[in-house]
Amino acid sequence: MERSYLFGIDVGGTAVKCGLFDTEGNLLEKWELPTRREEGGRYILPDAAKSALEKARERGIAQEEVLGVGVGVPGPVDERGEMPFAVNLGWGYKNVSGEMEELTGWKSRAANDANVAALGELWRGGAQGYKNAVLLTLGTGIGGGIILNGKILAGSHGAGGELGHVHADDQETEKCNCGNRGCLEQVASATGIVRLARRELASCGDPSLLREGELSAKAVFDAVKQQDPVALRIAERFGEYMGKATAGFAAVVDPEVFVIGGGVSKAGTVLLDYIRKYYRAYAFPACRSAEFVLASLGNDAGIYGAARLLLD
Amino acid sequence: MERSYLFGIDVGGTAVKCGLFDTEGNLLEKWELPTRREEGGRYILPDAAKSALEKARERGIAQEEVLGVGVGVPGPVDERGEMPFAVNLGWGYKNVSGEMEELTGWKSRAANDANVAALGELWRGGAQGYKNAVLLTLGTGIGGGIILNGKILAGSHGAGGELGHVHADDQETEKCNCGNRGCLEQVASATGIVRLARRELASCGDPSLLREGELSAKAVFDAVKQQDPVALRIAERFGEYMGKATAGFAAVVDPEVFVIGGGVSKAGTVLLDYIRKYYRAYAFPACRSAEFVLASLGNDAGIYGAARLLLD
Repeated sequence: MERSYLFGIDVGGTAVKCGLFDTEGNLLEKWELPTRREEGGRYILPDAAKSALEKARERGIAQEEVLGVGVGVPGPVDERGEMPFAVNLGWGYKNVSGEMEELTGWKSRAANDANVAALGELWRGGAQGYKNAVLLTLGTGIGGGIILNGKILAGSHGAGGELGHVHADDQETEKCNCGNRGCLEQVASATGIVRLARRELASCGDPSLLREGELSAKAVFDAVKQQDPVALRIAERFGEYMGKATAGFAAVVDPEVFVIGGGVSKAGTVLLDYIRKYYRAYAFPACRSAEFVLASLGNDAGIYGAARLLLD
Repeated sequence: MERSYLFGIDVGGTAVKCGLFDTEGNLLEKWELPTRREEGGRYILPDAAKSALEKARERGIAQEEVLGVGVGVPGPVDERGEMPFAVNLGWGYKNVSGEMEELTGWKSRAANDANVAALGELWRGGAQGYKNAVLLTLGTGIGGGIILNGKILAGSHGAGGELGHVHADDQETEKCNCGNRGCLEQVASATGIVRLARRELASCGDPSLLREGELSAKAVFDAVKQQDPVALRIAERFGEYMGKATAGFAAVVDPEVFVIGGGVSKAGTVLLDYIRKYYRAYAFPACRSAEFVLASLGNDAGIYGAARLLLD
């Protein structure tokens, strides 16, 4: 019997997303489970395993038709699928792929959630057809993932592609969640854009659409589309931080394409225009032609990429 | 007959360095040829090929005892050993490894010179025993090379590891050789350290050992060892530029070790102390324990790494 199914599981702090795929990368079904963080998160993997086994049974998929189950987890994961800790899940050391193999009887691979999202976008999302890509997920924080020759760059301490934590601002006085000051995440995530906006609004008396209603990254880029002068200045600052940072990433890993995802990316291609403008100004000449595209899988990128881990 | 010899060739702008190695990485003999740049550099590879063939004949090494010839070249090289141009050699497009195979009858591999130097340091130099390393060669400019899982990160445009051209200084007004402003190379190469020193000396009236004799990176670090206050301030600035830059590299590729080479590295471990101090301050927590070591192969790193290319 041919092995023709894959499970992709994306473990988040509140929900576990699950997907059943064929080996071509078609998503056949997706569903979610709550993340049970009690008792050190000991039920999280068993819950996910049980759910996948049930799904297979429900669909009449034989055990040997499943190629394996990939798992994306929030935290550093090494190339063997082991992680030292996962703060958001209450985990200490865990051999994620080893445990999933025991629980399901299927082959398993595990990787960091931001990295599997990048792999998903490369497989079936915004970066399809590329081999070398850098993904930046601009949400509450900034997640980063790097794919080189179709494979995740995991890093020596599971911190490969921790792109939200490159230093981006010498003037920053507040601390980032990581403990440092001036991380890219503090000025270019959804939260970071709101901070930029607050500062810009406080430093000038100009009228602005942003003085009404709730301040958000979406509000900023909606105002940009209406040529609001204050919003335009905020977008330039965002573009400069992101352009300078991506130019730095290019001098290191020299990707073909940058993929921009996360909630902020809903602003659309205008976002790419601002980043690209400053990227071109700061990038090493040989890297200047790298593409910028929007992520297209949204919250499903993780389950796609987790499933894709099995196809190496 | 066992294939037990390797040639490593490092093509520079003025000299072509050649080495004969056994497969354990022992350098059996090394020699140099002048780089004949006339007529678009058309004689450079044939000269090197001829020299290697002669060396084999001279030592009674049969054609089939040679595993191959690796070539390091100054410019972007893709993973197939092809390069679009090499300004310093007068070359346009060249299939370097293909041409060497035709000229010698041996298998050939080619890569960028800074990248092969990194591979050399990993094989038999300062980074022996590591699999993931970032090399920075601080000379007239700054060369960079990244090794992940024992393999060179070549990049999509042959610009992987162009670490001297990450943006490091927003205040810079002069242009870098690459055309941008504020590259790391402008503030942390041998030339860059002299620029920092000139500016520091001009901006203060303090007495300093650096006001006598010729200003050089060596003079700066000699004065640091004598606790010269002006030199100490220059070293701090150098350390901050380098520490911040290496912390940025760590958030991208998360290496086990940074290897510092080039003329500036003759200052010794004091150099590492200044870099490490700021690296620790700016690095993402999971990467903070990365090691800093001095390169140990000097100008031979290139021939070692070029030879090592054949062992993949």
